[in-house]
Amino acid sequence: MSTQYVYRFGNKATEGSKEMKSLLGGKGANLAEMSSIGLPVPPGFTVTTETCHYYSSNQHSWPHGLKHQIEQGLKHVEQALGRTLGDPSKPLLVSVRSGAAQSMPGMMDTVLNLGMNDQVVEGLAIESGNERFAYDAYRRFIDMFGDVVMGVHHHYFEEAIDSMKKSKGVTDDVDLNAEDLKQLVKQFKAIYKQHAGHSFPTNPHTQLEHAINAVFNSWDSNRAIKYRRINKITGLLGTAVNVQAMVYGNMGESSGTGVCFTRNPSNGEPELYGEYLVNAQGEDVVAGIRTPKPISEMAQEFPQPYHELLRMTSDLEKHYKNMQDIEFTIQDGSLYILQTRNGKRTGRAALRTAVDLVEEGITDKVTAVRDLVEPGHLDQLLHPGFKDELAYQDDVLAVGLPASPGAAVGQVVFTADEAESWAQEGKKVILVRIETSPEDVGGMDAAQGILTSRGGMTSHAAVVARGWGKPCVAGCGDVHINYGTKSFTVGEVTIHEGEWISINGSSGELIQGAQDLVSAQMSEDFVTFMNWADEVRPIKVRTNADTPEDAEKAISFGAEGIGLCRTEHMFFEGNRILSVREMILAKSDEDRVSALNKLLPFQRDDFIGIFKAMNGKPVTIRLLDPPLHEFLPHDESGKQEMAQLMGVSQSVIEAKLVELHEFNPMLGHRGCRLGITFPEITIMQTRAIIEAAVEVRNAGFDPYPEIMVPLIGTVEEFQNQKQLIQETAEKVFEEAGTRIDYLIGTMIEVPRAALTADAIAKEADFFSFGTNDLTQMCFGYSRDDAGKFLPGYVEHKILADDPFQVLDQEGVGQLVEIATHRGRDAKSTLKIGICGEHGGEPQSVGFCYRLGFDYVSCSPFRVPIARLSAAQAHLENQS
Amino acid sequence: MSTQYVYRFGNKATEGSKEMKSLLGGKGANLAEMSSIGLPVPPGFTVTTETCHYYSSNQHSWPHGLKHQIEQGLKHVEQALGRTLGDPSKPLLVSVRSGAAQSMPGMMDTVLNLGMNDQVVEGLAIESGNERFAYDAYRRFIDMFGDVVMGVHHHYFEEAIDSMKKSKGVTDDVDLNAEDLKQLVKQFKAIYKQHAGHSFPTNPHTQLEHAINAVFNSWDSNRAIKYRRINKITGLLGTAVNVQAMVYGNMGESSGTGVCFTRNPSNGEPELYGEYLVNAQGEDVVAGIRTPKPISEMAQEFPQPYHELLRMTSDLEKHYKNMQDIEFTIQDGSLYILQTRNGKRTGRAALRTAVDLVEEGITDKVTAVRDLVEPGHLDQLLHPGFKDELAYQDDVLAVGLPASPGAAVGQVVFTADEAESWAQEGKKVILVRIETSPEDVGGMDAAQGILTSRGGMTSHAAVVARGWGKPCVAGCGDVHINYGTKSFTVGEVTIHEGEWISINGSSGELIQGAQDLVSAQMSEDFVTFMNWADEVRPIKVRTNADTPEDAEKAISFGAEGIGLCRTEHMFFEGNRILSVREMILAKSDEDRVSALNKLLPFQRDDFIGIFKAMNGKPVTIRLLDPPLHEFLPHDESGKQEMAQLMGVSQSVIEAKLVELHEFNPMLGHRGCRLGITFPEITIMQTRAIIEAAVEVRNAGFDPYPEIMVPLIGTVEEFQNQKQLIQETAEKVFEEAGTRIDYLIGTMIEVPRAALTADAIAKEADFFSFGTNDLTQMCFGYSRDDAGKFLPGYVEHKILADDPFQVLDQEGVGQLVEIATHRGRDAKSTLKIGICGEHGGEPQSVGFCYRLGFDYVSCSPFRVPIARLSAAQAHLENQS
Repeated sequence: MSTQYVYRFGNKATEGSKEMKSLLGGKGANLAEMSSIGLPVPPGFTVTTETCHYYSSNQHSWPHGLKHQIEQGLKHVEQALGRTLGDPSKPLLVSVRSGAAQSMPGMMDTVLNLGMNDQVVEGLAIESGNERFAYDAYRRFIDMFGDVVMGVHHHYFEEAIDSMKKSKGVTDDVDLNAEDLKQLVKQFKAIYKQHAGHSFPTNPHTQLEHAINAVFNSWDSNRAIKYRRINKITGLLGTAVNVQAMVYGNMGESSGTGVCFTRNPSNGEPELYGEYLVNAQGEDVVAGIRTPKPISEMAQEFPQPYHELLRMTSDLEKHYKNMQDIEFTIQDGSLYILQTRNGKRTGRAALRTAVDLVEEGITDKVTAVRDLVEPGHLDQLLHPGFKDELAYQDDVLAVGLPASPGAAVGQVVFTADEAESWAQEGKKVILVRIETSPEDVGGMDAAQGILTSRGGMTSHAAVVARGWGKPCVAGCGDVHINYGTKSFTVGEVTIHEGEWISINGSSGELIQGAQDLVSAQMSEDFVTFMNWADEVRPIKVRTNADTPEDAEKAISFGAEGIGLCRTEHMFFEGNRILSVREMILAKSDEDRVSALNKLLPFQRDDFIGIFKAMNGKPVTIRLLDPPLHEFLPHDESGKQEMAQLMGVSQSVIEAKLVELHEFNPMLGHRGCRLGITFPEITIMQTRAIIEAAVEVRNAGFDPYPEIMVPLIGTVEEFQNQKQLIQETAEKVFEEAGTRIDYLIGTMIEVPRAALTADAIAKEADFFSFGTNDLTQMCFGYSRDDAGKFLPGYVEHKILADDPFQVLDQEGVGQLVEIATHRGRDAKSTLKIGICGEHGGEPQSVGFCYRLGFDYVSCSPFRVPIARLSAAQAHLENQS
Repeated sequence: MSTQYVYRFGNKATEGSKEMKSLLGGKGANLAEMSSIGLPVPPGFTVTTETCHYYSSNQHSWPHGLKHQIEQGLKHVEQALGRTLGDPSKPLLVSVRSGAAQSMPGMMDTVLNLGMNDQVVEGLAIESGNERFAYDAYRRFIDMFGDVVMGVHHHYFEEAIDSMKKSKGVTDDVDLNAEDLKQLVKQFKAIYKQHAGHSFPTNPHTQLEHAINAVFNSWDSNRAIKYRRINKITGLLGTAVNVQAMVYGNMGESSGTGVCFTRNPSNGEPELYGEYLVNAQGEDVVAGIRTPKPISEMAQEFPQPYHELLRMTSDLEKHYKNMQDIEFTIQDGSLYILQTRNGKRTGRAALRTAVDLVEEGITDKVTAVRDLVEPGHLDQLLHPGFKDELAYQDDVLAVGLPASPGAAVGQVVFTADEAESWAQEGKKVILVRIETSPEDVGGMDAAQGILTSRGGMTSHAAVVARGWGKPCVAGCGDVHINYGTKSFTVGEVTIHEGEWISINGSSGELIQGAQDLVSAQMSEDFVTFMNWADEVRPIKVRTNADTPEDAEKAISFGAEGIGLCRTEHMFFEGNRILSVREMILAKSDEDRVSALNKLLPFQRDDFIGIFKAMNGKPVTIRLLDPPLHEFLPHDESGKQEMAQLMGVSQSVIEAKLVELHEFNPMLGHRGCRLGITFPEITIMQTRAIIEAAVEVRNAGFDPYPEIMVPLIGTVEEFQNQKQLIQETAEKVFEEAGTRIDYLIGTMIEVPRAALTADAIAKEADFFSFGTNDLTQMCFGYSRDDAGKFLPGYVEHKILADDPFQVLDQEGVGQLVEIATHRGRDAKSTLKIGICGEHGGEPQSVGFCYRLGFDYVSCSPFRVPIARLSAAQAHLENQS
């Protein structure tokens, strides 16, 4: 038996199924699937991807037998419809479409109405009783065939239409009558001949052969090759070709076309939801020229097709176990299903649908968790949004990075102090800064949202805002801020202090004026669904939280521990900053110790609060990380104030600032390098942690401190800090007359640490990947500066994603993998987690799961996303 | 037969040799070797490292038979000398020393005069006729035994001496007479008993047993364990113990002691060179209390020993095939050789010795290249030095990093402009800056040397200075510069503009006042020796050079190509900087292109000059690398000047500076990121390169351009730039009607590039490792800021070396190795080199050689060092 190159579908003779994607392509497999479950799909056939491969590999020749099989395929279609390709009395017209196993822009798309010629068009005119319809179809065919099959550019045809419209004094294509279109067909054929170098092929079989070859050729087009390279698509044989009978919704009042959803995509209500148009084609619904009717009216107007549609859509939903988005056409009273796919929906609808489909017995909990809610859906539910995102599009001034999701509205202020004072007066403000620094946290907290003109997804503003669930648009480079005039400009528009703006932290949009908000929408469905996700989730989800309040918030979102508690934020609160500055100005070790001793009780109280909030759950505390100059004021008035408060001359502060200045603070004196230069800091922090844990345990709670040393690059650094921590802890135990369990581990955020993870693992109890810094150093990108080129990189596909948003598995991921494998090889019990921003990003969570991490940790508002992503990664891995 | 734990040496009964290092330790093997070639080594025996291992592994017990073998060993010594341990009438005294296969501070060092007790000391007093000598030896023994064997701290004994001296009204130990020392011995025994908890052991055999055990125990001391861990010493069994008869040069006028070199260590003259003291011990020669006599005078004073010494030293040199540094003692007319080792020598002496030893037939060329000259020796020859480094030690103000070798003297200036104008007046100046930037190159060039208070070994000042062979001390943190008062202070000292200072770029010293200089000393020996090195060298050595002058200099040092030609330095020369700034301020692509077009002829001329200078040799040209703000003035007057020259308001320049400001410029918009954002720059530079190559070829030269794209992190970046380069080159070829061969490759300096080297190698013709940036990113160290903690890291052994000086093979080296293997696996013909500063560092050159690099590239003055290092790496690898 010879190879089967052609698979038929429709009219109860379907040979394929949805499992045959690699042979039939996605589109072909789906057409076959719909046919095989008895839906009225216009009949057709699919030429396999293997055929394309043969064609590519054999100097563009067809394999033996293909021509015959295509003829047989055609016959199948002709018999099904009682029509014949090229027969003017009962003409068959077909569409030809490409379709690989993965969706792939860059290949030939569609040729419609193939089979048309001067005789067929006349027959179609007579049969439809609509000459204009027939000639409109003809001229469209010549245009499409010329353009996509023969490379005669569409604009030549467009020019001919334009001059025709001009000469007739009309502006719309629909105002051209049958006679005009006849003329146009003549002109189109002439244009075709001129540019293609031969007459328009009148033989429909020749047309078909050319169209099929054009699809094959488009597989090897530069655009398609580039697309596959960029998207790393490999292992495909080629594209399939789908040849399918045309059906028409515009053949009169007994015809029509529509789209519908099996459930309401806005709120998930279980009802057929959609719209249709009588005597119209699919494009007309989209074009919006005529107003479609609600789908329910079909019950009156097309009772028979409507009931068929009800049954079929219900069947489709059960078959695909998912809410469907369906395109259909009624040709002369007969219903045809043209396409079905999973319907796009809002977060609210997604949760309702998931819960309902399970309760209706259509699917099961595990499948619902795997397929029915996207992590991004949850984001919508956890943050306020705009009432109508379409309404404000004209007022969008600029688009920055979607740094922290949610919508916010407020009056513009330019300093943290103003944000606080305005907010105290009851005003709603948006804090607009070139960038933010730890000094600004008070004002950031007081603001409704934050807008920065510099900095990336992991800039200070972005990280802090996400931690709080506060909307933030970061790195909005088109915004030029002038602090002097208290205004910013975007292009021609200038916005002054006090004017209203809105920001959309989910899309990055900056909008002029105050837009209407809708609040976050947590629901019972949410809780039900997340519990199902937790049932299958194999990896813990922790949160990044620095305060008892954040910790409690995160627990309400399902956090199972703290993966990153940053101690430096505690250094800013209230008067503590004075002691911190005293420590920095200290001229001797003794002075430094004395300043640190003032901080000790505050730090201890912080930890007491957190340990109580996280009772019974692990808390990973990172020792001081940022460079010391971040704790000093950088503006004139701040320096003056500090000088007065501390009783030193301002020049002392200036001199310290000069001394602490760094060219590249990211790569400077920070992290464990501080604790090594100033062991007193590590000792004070350890004492605060261990004393707090002892006190809390004595009060009947259950603390699990995990002390984390940041920015380790060599095992010697870790040993140095570990020794200090152990010695200090032992002293506290001795003083307290009791012990508690605690761990000592390290961030893996420096490439060298990843590469020498075997040595470090021998000393460390746990690793926590700090993928923000690891990404910075692996790529050599400063997250605060990369805004200058990263957007262009993503736009031009030099990078698939912003690596600060989605973990770069190809590069940075190698370091994570190396460190994980070497770490676990050296110590099989090594606890491994991630505390970078990627810990709440679905693809990255999947990556961590596959590497066998014990947990991921992310900001509180991302905890639900991480929970679902982890569950889905597990289910994907099993399927 | 039972295991041999003890190996004898001396008196023609030697059982070991220099090949038995792992069993006998380095010291033991050397003693055995000297004995076996017939030298009069005081007899003794070595307890093996295996014995130590047994002792450690068996609860500090001795293996069966050891005690007996030690007794036999003692008998061997006693018989050889006719003396007996503990016999007052003819006492034998011995020394006990540790000695592992590798030198290892932290273990027990030495106990001398073991065997002494109240009876023996009397016997020795009688025998030597010198009671003071005998009691001095005794009190020293109690002190040493107490301290190193029993842990009774030396300072207890020291206190007793001090109070004795006070009570006697003397200041020197030598002023104590025999009676005093007798008293002291009594006191010492009391001190010993008090702190050790038992009486001083009078039985010499007990003393010996304790001392041997103390050596064994010191192997497992914390200090020794830490030393082995830090220096990654593994695989050793333990330490050996050497027990050797004491000999005395202070037993009267027929005794003496001395040290000598087989050749003059200053200039290499073939003569016995050294000095001796009559009736003295080794310490006395070192202590400098008495003035020793030149060795030649021994011919008169000790004719027999002198002639023996002449013969023996000559034999030793022939045996070790190297100039020897020998310690000897004459006891009562008998010559003993105590130690021989390869002599330390100056660079000049090293070369002379190497050439002479080959010419005298003592060694061969290959061995001479491998063993007789250290790469550091060449450094001395290539740079001026100070006439007398000892003379200025009191005037050393501070020590910074030895950033570029050589000595310089000049008057202090604080700005590049002043450096230039003072130099034009014929003054010699040292440019003193907090740090330098590309704007300063004119002044740096005009200065005799450069001193900076910030920045590391690869800071701008250091890199540029090394490139020019100009002395530079960088990162001298104790220097506090005040540009306002035109002065700097170091501690209490303030130096003003115009005052004289000297700097030693080889040691990092900053010296007050003008010191005398001696110029560089290239010699015929140098050329001869380097040719021998080249004969065995298997890997090319290129240079980093940006100008035809540098290129010519480097060729004279033996460079075989340019491995790194930085194009940005060309952007500063003369009026070009104006066009560069015009390009930076350009508001449109057209303006940018127009500014670049003005630069094109200059760049082309630069390359024409370099291609001509490097005729027939490859030239790797790096496309623009630094962030654009480096080309703008940052000081007020510079901004004013620029505004005037360019006819724009100063605020335009301020605004651009703000726009270009980066938090971490190292990780910012630079390297290929510039060429991707502004393709015009890549196009202009490519055009300049290819046009220059075509022109030079047409003029009969032989250009080999290799275009290098900097800071690649993803293959997509490289593809982007490669396409631009190829398209531009093709255009030039078309215009010129001819073609030339050229390569397109990339720096590997971003960790991600190393990790994805397989993909990049498929596209690239060559890799050049930029290990400066790779080190910065792999460690997360900013080379400009790391001065704050790196010196402490090296001091506390957290790092073995400054990784910017010596390539970190353990961490950064992994990335180099990964990239090399993956690159060559993907493309076996891939050309691989290194152009970071490590390319001229001996250990790092060895690493590159072992990985199979095609070449290393370094600054011109390091080329000879790289040539020798590469040859030595090859020879080491073969042995």
